[in-house]
Amino acid sequence: MPIDRAACKALDHADPLARHRDDFTLPDDVVYLDGNSLGALPRATAGRVAACIAKDWGQDLITSWNKAGWIDLPRRLGDKIARLVGAAPGEVLVADSTSVNLFKLLAAALALRPERRTILSDTGNFPTDLYMAQGLAALRGAGHVLRLAEPADVAHSIDGDTAVVMLTEVDYRTGRRHDMRALTAAAHAAGALTIWDLAHSAGAGPVDLAGCGADFAVGCGYKFLNGGPGAPAFLYVPTRHQDAFVQPLSGWLGHAAPFAFEHGYRPAEGVSRYLCGTPPILSMVALECGLDTVLAADPAALRAKAMRMGDLFITLVEERCAGHGLTLACPRDATTRGSQVSFRHPQGYAIVQALVARGVIGDFRAPDILRFGLAPLYLRYDDIWRATDELAGILATRAWDQERFHRRAAVT
Amino acid sequence: MPIDRAACKALDHADPLARHRDDFTLPDDVVYLDGNSLGALPRATAGRVAACIAKDWGQDLITSWNKAGWIDLPRRLGDKIARLVGAAPGEVLVADSTSVNLFKLLAAALALRPERRTILSDTGNFPTDLYMAQGLAALRGAGHVLRLAEPADVAHSIDGDTAVVMLTEVDYRTGRRHDMRALTAAAHAAGALTIWDLAHSAGAGPVDLAGCGADFAVGCGYKFLNGGPGAPAFLYVPTRHQDAFVQPLSGWLGHAAPFAFEHGYRPAEGVSRYLCGTPPILSMVALECGLDTVLAADPAALRAKAMRMGDLFITLVEERCAGHGLTLACPRDATTRGSQVSFRHPQGYAIVQALVARGVIGDFRAPDILRFGLAPLYLRYDDIWRATDELAGILATRAWDQERFHRRAAVT
Repeated sequence: MPIDRAACKALDHADPLARHRDDFTLPDDVVYLDGNSLGALPRATAGRVAACIAKDWGQDLITSWNKAGWIDLPRRLGDKIARLVGAAPGEVLVADSTSVNLFKLLAAALALRPERRTILSDTGNFPTDLYMAQGLAALRGAGHVLRLAEPADVAHSIDGDTAVVMLTEVDYRTGRRHDMRALTAAAHAAGALTIWDLAHSAGAGPVDLAGCGADFAVGCGYKFLNGGPGAPAFLYVPTRHQDAFVQPLSGWLGHAAPFAFEHGYRPAEGVSRYLCGTPPILSMVALECGLDTVLAADPAALRAKAMRMGDLFITLVEERCAGHGLTLACPRDATTRGSQVSFRHPQGYAIVQALVARGVIGDFRAPDILRFGLAPLYLRYDDIWRATDELAGILATRAWDQERFHRRAAVT
Repeated sequence: MPIDRAACKALDHADPLARHRDDFTLPDDVVYLDGNSLGALPRATAGRVAACIAKDWGQDLITSWNKAGWIDLPRRLGDKIARLVGAAPGEVLVADSTSVNLFKLLAAALALRPERRTILSDTGNFPTDLYMAQGLAALRGAGHVLRLAEPADVAHSIDGDTAVVMLTEVDYRTGRRHDMRALTAAAHAAGALTIWDLAHSAGAGPVDLAGCGADFAVGCGYKFLNGGPGAPAFLYVPTRHQDAFVQPLSGWLGHAAPFAFEHGYRPAEGVSRYLCGTPPILSMVALECGLDTVLAADPAALRAKAMRMGDLFITLVEERCAGHGLTLACPRDATTRGSQVSFRHPQGYAIVQALVARGVIGDFRAPDILRFGLAPLYLRYDDIWRATDELAGILATRAWDQERFHRRAAVT
């Protein structure tokens, strides 16, 4: 018998994560399925940032670099993220943007494989990762090539010239989740290194970088980590690689003694050498609030709920939207799917706009993908009901046909 | 006859900039002479950031990238800074940190002078600039050399191998101000390009990048621009250089069509190609409040007041602290001095700590420099009186000898 709304509400009633929704400030009338683009606002953030501004900056001024621990934020937040991604303390750092951090790590990986020329990625990677690799290769001028395989063909595309396999674990459009353990093993078997982009993974469930033997990783602070718009990013360098290379964005905060103001760069020991310039403190403070929301939850429960919500979403769409041209764009198997579902439709853009007008915020990704993020920390099963109910209504009445919206695509 | 406190108060009474102090929230009992390290808190910032968090992020969520104009902030703030540094609209961008921006510009400068191998800087440059140059040179592996001249010898050190002259206009320790016009002309006469770091210039008085013919510039958002701790930085690329090079930190926001999600990087036209990753919005919003405080004042008046405050500081120290081992470390001539004064003393560190304990916040810079920033937008001449009065008292009683402080050096 078909699932009804009461069944969804019953799932919410039994949800062990339900109470975490209270850690967030979400508009009452909105079903927010874009937490994989910009995570929701934690309830603690406004107060913490306000105190940072009024007290730490306004009253204590420059002394807050030490008194309020600003100088320690990149490492302290990094250690918090380490608990979410299967890393040890001192192996993760918060700094800069995902793009900039990727540049540092890619330079390191290429230096550690000096005889090899191929950077292998896939066609599902988020473009900025590809662009940064192109920029680094052009700057090096040493004949490095970025080669793209189809996601399913990555393992077979690794060869003896592959210096590094650079992948985003979860595809930002299709939600397809790579097998980090198997691909890392395949890379290592061929003598290559790995860089994993955890943009759509960190904060949505367990990640086991150390267990998978990953060599490097980057990730985003503003998606499932709820750090706020454009929150600083993180990077992971395991202890075994930390002192093997001096990364090229060698700014003063990565110096062994930043306050000695020496003329020559001497890299700090450990992961700190991956710091560059002075970090944006207000955004760092907000990020810490986001991290605390995630750390309060059981990662396995987050993953289980995301899988279940995804299954529910797909089932409801297939029950209630059949015959209207939607096709599944994400894996049906929840174990190979990230915290999102995706569908294709020739009128995808207009349909997403019609949903937004009805308070269901999803995202469109060219050319034809409707993308719905499933943040298990604050979404309810009833939200899935409401989203698919509105979607069914729009499709049945062709409401998208009448809608006229002019909205530029939002930042992923 | 010696200057007394009444004379200082009279200067405040006649100060055309006096009303701008009300634009800031400063603790009553503090004389804040570290605005060249972390600018004071503008009165508008707390409210603007709070609204961004509660409304734009919390309620409007992902739609704020367009609705609240987040996506336009790098250009919009850049255009505001352009008015402060003598640039045209569309020539300045806010992004990343000063260090990261310097890397982009240095890569551009070297590419525009492919036959030359020397990056010329001086021994007074802030270390991160030197470190970034070292990092880029090592990464390029093309034999580029960073050569340091004494500040007074820069002009004579430019030669036919000099690709770029990379200087910070105002020395972070001594306050010595380079002649941007003359040095840029000297560089150009030798076929070299220039990169100016305006960290201690922007917001403290007029800067005339276009008038001086500067090729590139970077600057800091958290000093005289009052953008908050670790505020994003800016960069300047004049129209004539914008499309000549594809900078290597080619992240998605610098793409010609970021939301087309193409696999290949195509640089945006104009200065936007110098964008990289997603910017930290909360810190950007705070920076805009800081910029607005500066834009409300007349740059020439700012410069005149900073010069006069510096002259007053030096005069009072020489009248009231004579015989206690302080020597002037900054230029006596205000026209070659930035918005700060500096002195040397063998016990500089302890003396600065004693001042801080008395509510006079200056800074110590190794090995022996006492540094006092003179932010003309919110300082009073009476603050100069109080600072020098405390300094005289500490020196006369050798109070620093009894003080025991353990404070790590603060971020410059």
